[in-house]
Amino acid sequence: MKEHSFVSGIIAIFAGILMPIKSLYMKQPQHVLGLTCPPITHNVRIGLIGLGNRGRATLERYQVLKDAEITALCDLRRQNLDEAQHCLVRHGKNKAVTYTGEQGWRDICRDPAVDLIYICTDWLTHTPMATYAMEQGKHVALEVPAAMTVDECWKLVDTAERTRRHCIMLENCCYDTFALAALSMAQQGMFGEITHCEGAYIHDLRDKYNADENNGGYHKGWMRKYSLLHGGNPYPTHGLGPVCQLLDIHRGDRLDYLVSLSSGSASGRHEHGDHINNTLLRTVKGKSILIQYDVTTPRPYSRMQTICGTRGFAQKYPRRCFMFDGQEAVQGDAVEPLLERFKHPFIATLGEEGLRLGVSNLMNYMMDRRLIHCLKEGLPTDMDVYDAAEWSCITELSEQSALQGSVPVKIPDFTRGRWQELDGFRFA
Amino acid sequence: MKEHSFVSGIIAIFAGILMPIKSLYMKQPQHVLGLTCPPITHNVRIGLIGLGNRGRATLERYQVLKDAEITALCDLRRQNLDEAQHCLVRHGKNKAVTYTGEQGWRDICRDPAVDLIYICTDWLTHTPMATYAMEQGKHVALEVPAAMTVDECWKLVDTAERTRRHCIMLENCCYDTFALAALSMAQQGMFGEITHCEGAYIHDLRDKYNADENNGGYHKGWMRKYSLLHGGNPYPTHGLGPVCQLLDIHRGDRLDYLVSLSSGSASGRHEHGDHINNTLLRTVKGKSILIQYDVTTPRPYSRMQTICGTRGFAQKYPRRCFMFDGQEAVQGDAVEPLLERFKHPFIATLGEEGLRLGVSNLMNYMMDRRLIHCLKEGLPTDMDVYDAAEWSCITELSEQSALQGSVPVKIPDFTRGRWQELDGFRFA
Repeated sequence: MKEHSFVSGIIAIFAGILMPIKSLYMKQPQHVLGLTCPPITHNVRIGLIGLGNRGRATLERYQVLKDAEITALCDLRRQNLDEAQHCLVRHGKNKAVTYTGEQGWRDICRDPAVDLIYICTDWLTHTPMATYAMEQGKHVALEVPAAMTVDECWKLVDTAERTRRHCIMLENCCYDTFALAALSMAQQGMFGEITHCEGAYIHDLRDKYNADENNGGYHKGWMRKYSLLHGGNPYPTHGLGPVCQLLDIHRGDRLDYLVSLSSGSASGRHEHGDHINNTLLRTVKGKSILIQYDVTTPRPYSRMQTICGTRGFAQKYPRRCFMFDGQEAVQGDAVEPLLERFKHPFIATLGEEGLRLGVSNLMNYMMDRRLIHCLKEGLPTDMDVYDAAEWSCITELSEQSALQGSVPVKIPDFTRGRWQELDGFRFA
Repeated sequence: MKEHSFVSGIIAIFAGILMPIKSLYMKQPQHVLGLTCPPITHNVRIGLIGLGNRGRATLERYQVLKDAEITALCDLRRQNLDEAQHCLVRHGKNKAVTYTGEQGWRDICRDPAVDLIYICTDWLTHTPMATYAMEQGKHVALEVPAAMTVDECWKLVDTAERTRRHCIMLENCCYDTFALAALSMAQQGMFGEITHCEGAYIHDLRDKYNADENNGGYHKGWMRKYSLLHGGNPYPTHGLGPVCQLLDIHRGDRLDYLVSLSSGSASGRHEHGDHINNTLLRTVKGKSILIQYDVTTPRPYSRMQTICGTRGFAQKYPRRCFMFDGQEAVQGDAVEPLLERFKHPFIATLGEEGLRLGVSNLMNYMMDRRLIHCLKEGLPTDMDVYDAAEWSCITELSEQSALQGSVPVKIPDFTRGRWQELDGFRFA
């Protein structure tokens, strides 16, 4: 990076002169760390965009959720809207207002009877829709990744800061039972100082990649199309989200840089959509993170969820394991008493509630409940726009590194220096 | 790396002019790929240097081994020599000639009644002893890593090429039952095209690090001393060896570059000897490799041994697993029939033999037997000096990368361009 140091210096000097001048005539947006908004006193009214695989599942999930209702629906495909209305009626709910056509997503964002825009569309439309929704005064919840480029990440941050709206990336893996217990253990010092963490998205998607959209596949094969054009790790947040919460990212520590390496052709791009990517990250405080992406090897599903500390160790995949200094490893079903002992308060309350309701996926239920709870109560949301940006920017940065022979790439500080102001990650 | 391209270009042009001139007056050493030496018609006579932890274990192992005898012993500590002689006598063997003092290792290398110098000393003395032994006409077997710097790696290669002696790094993990079965599977195409492999040395050594040398520790704490002074991965070969055999390294493919990242202080060095290192490597043909090093986290032992291919998957740690395209994963004890079906010929012959003899560690036994067998029969050894150099150079190169913010570092081609001449890894 040496060759840039002179130019960087000049830029830094100019910036030093210009920044104070800029601040005289331009109001610097205030940060949204710990953002609170007025409580929503009625049911949270949701406008749901995208009724494909994930959108349909979301609609179903929200049918059992209290304090929330789907009041508006948007999709390009009329049939998806019809099916969604049937779902609402089947559950004894009112039909929703529907939006369709190329401008439908803009129209739903302007619907005055909507508090929260919930985005389940393809990756490339997440940020344009989210920023537009915030501009219209809506809170936004969006599927992972929130953004596909660093530029989009900044757009989310800038827009959230200017509009003072919540922008929540729906990283459900942060509500995984094992992840929440490990977080409790970490916050109680069971691992000593955490030195290294691992996360992954290892999921054989070859069938889904090639499936027709009416048969479990993606609309016009958008995921495969994207993956064929890009190297790096396009889907880092399932692995990275829980790790960043453990490491207090932008709450006392910060992602500093990454290096990324993909298998496959020399360009680092997929030739047959079958590359494996490994990305190593370092935080300013010297913690290391490994994030792996592999959706084309016939192998068991895994998100790794590995935590190494000076006094303890945890790993969810392929077999649950805890080990603490001076003790034997606890593995497989034998971890249950430990999970019970360090059960996160969410499990005891929301988890039990979900079990009583018979929901099929507890982590999604806890995520949904927490989202609605925080909006209703006017609390800061569990994940904020800086999380969305930090976790999502790895998509472009890992590709940059992998395509340039794994050169180190700096990770932006989306908090603009305020990451040291908070003292550790906590749920509100 | 751009800033070097002009200089590199100039050097390349000069080298292009000078190399042919050099070859006119300097005899280029011939390569030792597939090196064969005359069969040893008597028992292979071994001079063993270093009678600490590993040396004592080696001496014990060789007591049941046919076609070999320990004829000379060398150590700085008189007591170790006495105990070693007792061991020989206890097993009904002749006492060995002993060498001690600072020059002892040179003296044993000149012993005419020794065919093979076997080095079990601390890391920093491996290469000086190995090169000296080859200069004296001996074959050399040395513990891992064979060398601690790239310069030492080249010394091993240059000396082996000049002296036409075998230089074998004793990477016992290449004889692991699971690794050998996986190698057989790979060579029979069970994994399709291998895209990514993982290896590791994950072994909580904190007790051993701090132990007195008379109580299971290392002579004057050499391992801990080295580790405190160095970042990167000082011990990469257990992970890398089996992977390089799977990927036909210097037999059709070649390690191209690596990036390495350590947890811990900003310098990348151990502050408390407790860093974790992850190194990513890429081969010229686009395969990726992850090598992890962690000797200070309280966690279960692991070498990972993960193989990802387009049609199959294998993983030894933490739980044995195979999975092939279109089939369910086979895990834990259920893998036994697969291991039996793809049993490597060594297991069927040497492994069974070792079991009959009641040896405690089958992979060491197979390694020892293969070494002696190849020397006796005048065959190429299973691992050659290029393997030793390629696997060991990661020690210095991973440190270089880690200390410079994980910059990519090129891996030398120790075969000087001949890596494409061989067609795949095979045992002789």
